[in-house]
Amino acid sequence: MQPPLTAEYAFDEDTRVTRVSDGGYTATLTDRWHALGGTPNGGYLLAVCLQALRGELPFPDPLVVSATYLRRPAPGPVQLASEIIRIGRRVGTGEVRLTQADKEIVRATATFTDLTAAEGPTQIDNAPPDLPDPEDAIDPMADASLPDVTIVDRFDFRYGTVPGWWRGQPEQDLTAEFWLRFRDGRPADPFTLPLMVDAAAPAVLDLPTFGSATIELTVHVRGRPAPGWVACRATTRHLRDGFHEEDFEIWDRDGQLVAQSRQLAVLP
Amino acid sequence: MQPPLTAEYAFDEDTRVTRVSDGGYTATLTDRWHALGGTPNGGYLLAVCLQALRGELPFPDPLVVSATYLRRPAPGPVQLASEIIRIGRRVGTGEVRLTQADKEIVRATATFTDLTAAEGPTQIDNAPPDLPDPEDAIDPMADASLPDVTIVDRFDFRYGTVPGWWRGQPEQDLTAEFWLRFRDGRPADPFTLPLMVDAAAPAVLDLPTFGSATIELTVHVRGRPAPGWVACRATTRHLRDGFHEEDFEIWDRDGQLVAQSRQLAVLP
Repeated sequence: MQPPLTAEYAFDEDTRVTRVSDGGYTATLTDRWHALGGTPNGGYLLAVCLQALRGELPFPDPLVVSATYLRRPAPGPVQLASEIIRIGRRVGTGEVRLTQADKEIVRATATFTDLTAAEGPTQIDNAPPDLPDPEDAIDPMADASLPDVTIVDRFDFRYGTVPGWWRGQPEQDLTAEFWLRFRDGRPADPFTLPLMVDAAAPAVLDLPTFGSATIELTVHVRGRPAPGWVACRATTRHLRDGFHEEDFEIWDRDGQLVAQSRQLAVLP
Repeated sequence: MQPPLTAEYAFDEDTRVTRVSDGGYTATLTDRWHALGGTPNGGYLLAVCLQALRGELPFPDPLVVSATYLRRPAPGPVQLASEIIRIGRRVGTGEVRLTQADKEIVRATATFTDLTAAEGPTQIDNAPPDLPDPEDAIDPMADASLPDVTIVDRFDFRYGTVPGWWRGQPEQDLTAEFWLRFRDGRPADPFTLPLMVDAAAPAVLDLPTFGSATIELTVHVRGRPAPGWVACRATTRHLRDGFHEEDFEIWDRDGQLVAQSRQLAVLP
């Protein structure tokens, strides 16, 4: 068991929840995790939701979380109502409703487990992204400024090949691979991974398009990541009539898959 | 709008719900959809849940549904409590709790839309399974009998290559492609697809293993299928310490992707 992290990192400060009643929590969304469009990122909302379940379930790690996005949030206070659905021997499941000004913003269901207690066979028919070492890779933010998209200030990104849209030359290539880490040194863990799968620009920007709205996001946490950079792969293979999935994988520096997510989103 | 289907097909008979209160429904799970292990299949439970939302939401098609499986069900009566979470301009979201003897079996969240009203760009970076015509493909059930797995009697399956485990020679090949249709002629539609993505043997049987328990299943319905057989692709790429995803695609006879699903499951 790792020692609890103090709130020295932006992630921990900005996802902190306060228990105010039986299953009831309050939190404050900050303006430091804004996605394209200038509102708090969906993965950030999910990370806040998980904090409101963490103390309710007797297992340390989120295993699978599914969130439906109902309305756009704004920075400021939110309320969270968490419910224990079932606690079993190996897993426990709960639900969280995140509301703002009495409007429900996100509803999330999450199943927790102890990932270090998982036992069984392993077979991986996939490989981590083939990227140059982070120190030899391209920092797309080196000469860029995205003042409304504050989430890019929370992370370091390193690409082997910068996406076409970033260079003003979209190529309809809906796969992107890159390194990712928190800029302030926050280690990745099972609670940060559900934010990290949604932290980068969507792969569909290379269509081009100006963004995409998440309807539903499901994250599988598959392991506790080793320290350091994580390698990410974002892919959209099926865009139909404006609706598309985005699949996201996160691999740690030891070459282990630590998270896999899929979202259904719609172009504006 | 298609005419409503009468309950002449097993699917419609066995997923029929009766509204007994505001958002409250009853239904009866039959023994005709048993999976490996001899209990009602998870996709069947999800299909019943969707019937309890169908009358509550003003949109005709499920678009994305996420279900968490909490306990094993048995054939017999169940209760369903449905809740409208939000109705928007293009989509509406609700939740269903399916209980049996006061124990919650499944909790599902679903967002509905009108798929025929979807507008926007299309780009598919994938292809349907490359299968021989159904009439030239292999029926694995031709000489087989699986008396406890009644769901195989509800469907016709046709493979280009029969999985190794089926021939008693598992090959650790965790991808399977095959044709699928209801044996009684029930056309596939957006309400049957969430059952069909879970109707076949899991790809991990080729490890070999004797089954796998679904923890969470998310289905994206991407279009209304054309009549006839649908082509399916089931894949597991990441089995780690007994936990694995299964990805499932369904393509219709016109070569359109009509459903995509992912589940997180655990080996026994």
